Amino acid sequence: MVDQTATGAAKPPLVELIDALPDVEVLTDPESTEPYRRDRANDRNVAVPLAVVLAERTEHVQAVMRWATANGIPVVPRGAGSGLSGGASAVQGGIVLSTERMRGLSIDETTRTAVVQPGLMNAEVKAAAAEVGLWYPPDPASAEFCSIGGNVATNAGGLCCVKYGVTTDYVLGIEVVLADGRAVRIGGPRLKDVAGLSMLKLFVGSEGTLGIITEITLRLLPAPMAPRTVVGWFDSSAAAGAAVAEIARRIRPSMLEYMDGVSIGAVEDELAMGLRRDAAALVVARSDDRSPTGEEVAIMLDAFERHGATECFETADVEDGERYAHARRIAIPAVERLGSLLLEDVGVAIPELPRLISGVERIAAENDVTIAFIAHAGDGNTHPLVVVDLEDRDMVRRAERSYGQIMDLAIDLGGTITGEHGVGRLKRPWLVDQIGDDLLDVSHRVKRALDPAGILNPGTIFAA
Amino acid sequence: MVDQTATGAAKPPLVELIDALPDVEVLTDPESTEPYRRDRANDRNVAVPLAVVLAERTEHVQAVMRWATANGIPVVPRGAGSGLSGGASAVQGGIVLSTERMRGLSIDETTRTAVVQPGLMNAEVKAAAAEVGLWYPPDPASAEFCSIGGNVATNAGGLCCVKYGVTTDYVLGIEVVLADGRAVRIGGPRLKDVAGLSMLKLFVGSEGTLGIITEITLRLLPAPMAPRTVVGWFDSSAAAGAAVAEIARRIRPSMLEYMDGVSIGAVEDELAMGLRRDAAALVVARSDDRSPTGEEVAIMLDAFERHGATECFETADVEDGERYAHARRIAIPAVERLGSLLLEDVGVAIPELPRLISGVERIAAENDVTIAFIAHAGDGNTHPLVVVDLEDRDMVRRAERSYGQIMDLAIDLGGTITGEHGVGRLKRPWLVDQIGDDLLDVSHRVKRALDPAGILNPGTIFAA
Repeated sequence: MVDQTATGAAKPPLVELIDALPDVEVLTDPESTEPYRRDRANDRNVAVPLAVVLAERTEHVQAVMRWATANGIPVVPRGAGSGLSGGASAVQGGIVLSTERMRGLSIDETTRTAVVQPGLMNAEVKAAAAEVGLWYPPDPASAEFCSIGGNVATNAGGLCCVKYGVTTDYVLGIEVVLADGRAVRIGGPRLKDVAGLSMLKLFVGSEGTLGIITEITLRLLPAPMAPRTVVGWFDSSAAAGAAVAEIARRIRPSMLEYMDGVSIGAVEDELAMGLRRDAAALVVARSDDRSPTGEEVAIMLDAFERHGATECFETADVEDGERYAHARRIAIPAVERLGSLLLEDVGVAIPELPRLISGVERIAAENDVTIAFIAHAGDGNTHPLVVVDLEDRDMVRRAERSYGQIMDLAIDLGGTITGEHGVGRLKRPWLVDQIGDDLLDVSHRVKRALDPAGILNPGTIFAA
Repeated sequence: MVDQTATGAAKPPLVELIDALPDVEVLTDPESTEPYRRDRANDRNVAVPLAVVLAERTEHVQAVMRWATANGIPVVPRGAGSGLSGGASAVQGGIVLSTERMRGLSIDETTRTAVVQPGLMNAEVKAAAAEVGLWYPPDPASAEFCSIGGNVATNAGGLCCVKYGVTTDYVLGIEVVLADGRAVRIGGPRLKDVAGLSMLKLFVGSEGTLGIITEITLRLLPAPMAPRTVVGWFDSSAAAGAAVAEIARRIRPSMLEYMDGVSIGAVEDELAMGLRRDAAALVVARSDDRSPTGEEVAIMLDAFERHGATECFETADVEDGERYAHARRIAIPAVERLGSLLLEDVGVAIPELPRLISGVERIAAENDVTIAFIAHAGDGNTHPLVVVDLEDRDMVRRAERSYGQIMDLAIDLGGTITGEHGVGRLKRPWLVDQIGDDLLDVSHRVKRALDPAGILNPGTIFAA
């Protein structure tokens, strides 16, 4: 439905777009476009978009891009809006191109691949694969409400990545619509293909700045063995960090997660499952290795004990283990009950983990803010969650300072400002500090080569 | 040593280069540069280079590129010269930049990473990792004589890739010298990092066309379990192909290799290990999974039997299994005894494998040439080897026609012209047929953005 009064649809360009998309819903009135202005990062600088296009087919995306190029109008691609770095914040006078209605899916058991459209949820892809005994590994904690298109656009991670890798490791092919509206196919259901530059891997994680991905060919694996879960409780974050480092060095756990006291308490408020509110840290680890000696579980228990766990045990069964994994997965929503969050995603090499943890504790104390600390500890990717009352302007200032200081700390430790969420708009100011002027310049050149007019998601990764 | 007479070193530019590299060996006389003119592909169109620079440090590579940019002179980077697509063929009036003397290596057990310089052999990296109980998986059959820098430049594969992935899956960071001489670091010892465009993955497999990689941070894994090896003999290639497809669909073997009758005979000539000369195909498969039921081995044997193997068995022990893996690894040198080879590297989705095999048999018959057929069958990556007597001009013509027809066939089957060797110079004419004009155009734009003067390995991937 087009509200002509509110949007000034009399202007030729938008009418032209609507005419070019006769069967597509194009939202233009402020009430309809409101839910499409921001993602889960709650970027406070979002604009009101000119229109939201609910594309259903690749041709629709092509029509939008041809029109946008002809008129020099920015386009922000949007999956499920679950992004945590403001990569889908609407920009002034721009189009939000939602892929939520592009939900095609087919699975080929003989090549063990899935061909999916971007609007499916990650969990839907997993479920469809599981129905035929196959497995799509990447598992962001938000699997139920994040889209596979967004996963590819951000090269999303998750809990199993410590052993099974991230999204890019499972993308065999894509169809992508370029800035000028051409649709290009790259890769396909081949496990090895080195014909030409690896444009495939370049598009993965490009956050909609180089093109809009309209179809994805995913590699699937046979279903994994049921995991064994080991739990360790610690009365100091340093001890927990040391145990994590030892496990990561010796074996390949299929999950190695960390929660601090704040997040333990928040999750216990939610689930009342008997988590220890007095603990400083909880480590939840898994093994799906089936060596006859069961040695991975033994190594994990041994590491917990030697680093002073106050308690550690293997869970009774798969279901009991799943309760602890679930506790970790709902940590962000649980901590959100304490206030609005500035969500971090910093990562360091494993041996630097204890220094990152203690540094964040110091930053919290110095700025007088609460920072919950959860982590995909096994790959050094952490989520400090800065809790903030948005009505309290001084607290907002202190929280924002903490947010920047945590990224500065990660960079000082040789780490990254984002392990799996993406740079988006919120982390862009810190990007150059991490990668340096020269690499940013090279990246800019690639951006300009593919999007010379700068209409693809301006402000994300690169300054608008 | 500079032979001033032979090279015309009086010309200012080359003198300038030599002056800029006081401690570096720069070869200019034809005798010294001869071994650096071609790689293992035996490209017949190689030129005489202006000079060969034996760089020892990143600064040397930078000096070469600054000079090359200032003077518009092409630079061909060269690892160990084991490339099979002519990616290191010398170009007229250009520099060959050899990284063979850049051999630094350090391993960090706590982050389970290796930092290596490009001149080390793949096998040397593997051996250094193994010394501390770690494992670098990618294993080209040429591991003993291919450099890790070349592996990264071509995104090399190998036998274990069917389960453990290819080179790009293990590259966490690089230092790369750009066309203008700037050295840039990308990535580092972090398992997850999505800060900015994935320039890292773009440089991997770019065959020296975007920059020259001078240092690599590699991810290592804990040492794998000793594998169990299963062998199947077949009297038809179709039956063997069907068995491979079934195994690849049901489980994740750690190796799944194929040899045809020609290559079996050639290897038996070499090893006299008792291979069956009357067989049409040999499949060598491995499992390093340790499920208590040993089910992977049972599934492989079952697949062999159900698809009519004339004989199949699990080898007696690890050493016996290694004999069969070795037989497969030496297949290319063994077939080389029959004549010069035009080496193919085409790949298809597994279900198309039987059609690729029968198509190559047809091409061999129609052109009256011998084509041996070996394959990393489990990932659909095959190496038809066209045997040719270079003195027989008619046979050369028929062999070259076969070489092109095999790539055409792979493209018709939805496959790739190169799974792991790279496009180089020899496969460039077919690249556009596989990836299409639009994707080639996009790739060209990226190339021009990073190498505007076109001095980096001209003729490889992109027309000079």
